[in-house]
Amino acid sequence: MELFEKTIKSDLKYEGLIINVRNDLVELPNGKMAGRDIVEHPGGVGIAAITDNNELLMVKQFRAGPKKVLLEIPAGKLEKGEDPKVCGMRELAEETGYTSSEFFKVAETYSSPGFTDELIHIYVARGLRPTQGAPDEDEFLKIEKIPISELKEMVDRCEICDAKSVIAILMSEKYMYREE
Amino acid sequence: MELFEKTIKSDLKYEGLIINVRNDLVELPNGKMAGRDIVEHPGGVGIAAITDNNELLMVKQFRAGPKKVLLEIPAGKLEKGEDPKVCGMRELAEETGYTSSEFFKVAETYSSPGFTDELIHIYVARGLRPTQGAPDEDEFLKIEKIPISELKEMVDRCEICDAKSVIAILMSEKYMYREE
Repeated sequence: MELFEKTIKSDLKYEGLIINVRNDLVELPNGKMAGRDIVEHPGGVGIAAITDNNELLMVKQFRAGPKKVLLEIPAGKLEKGEDPKVCGMRELAEETGYTSSEFFKVAETYSSPGFTDELIHIYVARGLRPTQGAPDEDEFLKIEKIPISELKEMVDRCEICDAKSVIAILMSEKYMYREE
Repeated sequence: MELFEKTIKSDLKYEGLIINVRNDLVELPNGKMAGRDIVEHPGGVGIAAITDNNELLMVKQFRAGPKKVLLEIPAGKLEKGEDPKVCGMRELAEETGYTSSEFFKVAETYSSPGFTDELIHIYVARGLRPTQGAPDEDEFLKIEKIPISELKEMVDRCEICDAKSVIAILMSEKYMYREE
């Protein structure tokens, strides 16, 4: 079965500071026409920052979508043309004040591919060291260190409900430090 | 530290078929003003449908956001006021032609809480049985059964890159059937 949709026409409907919204007219595999609303997003990076005690650095912050305070992994948006790894290391330092000696990608996920092109790159950071830097003035964040084992229980109780953070927590177990 | 943002004003910027976009003026915890673009979404349901052989039912389909064919768990949007469990059972039948004897929630995740209120409810379905129903005429889908062990390797290789599907695959291991 053919699955591909062909874009016939694309109209920009809203130009925001971070997102744009367009409406596409597409031709379905059976030749019928359909409309698609697409949110264009620059993409982002999330970091599972694992301490020497097998905790993750977590960030508590207010989120405009659900209008709630959520507990999430450190994360940030990509600047235009920015390398995701550079973005991730920058965001980790800005949000938590930590640098890392190991920083590697473990996943790439589309947040909600039915309506947005947002792609989030998920990295693991290990070998964490605190820096002197102060967090950005307009970032309102609380940093917490929480054991990975406890975070997994919080996921099971739906107490952590940010998609990228759930993925990072479930994937981080295999990158934990083992006792010698 | 105070984290809460107070909404001062809210303007509807785009009214789509499924999503709406609004621009909010918010007061930050330090009294400064900032703008927030928010995509309103009805939310959805995704299903980790586990066969008696510890495979998941997977759906291959074209996705308008990234303009790619992705491999995902069965999923669908909530109708206004619909119970997520009812929606999930309906979508499972419509997309795959299977019903289930056990159907329970394992997670609730915000897709991208920085810019959208979309909440996805993730269920596990077990005790799967095929029905006679034909899939919807305008759904262009290919159904595949893939062992959970293989899906985990595909996640590690970034071959499955839909956020809700990655979560469902990583969570489904503990609901697998064990050999007696």
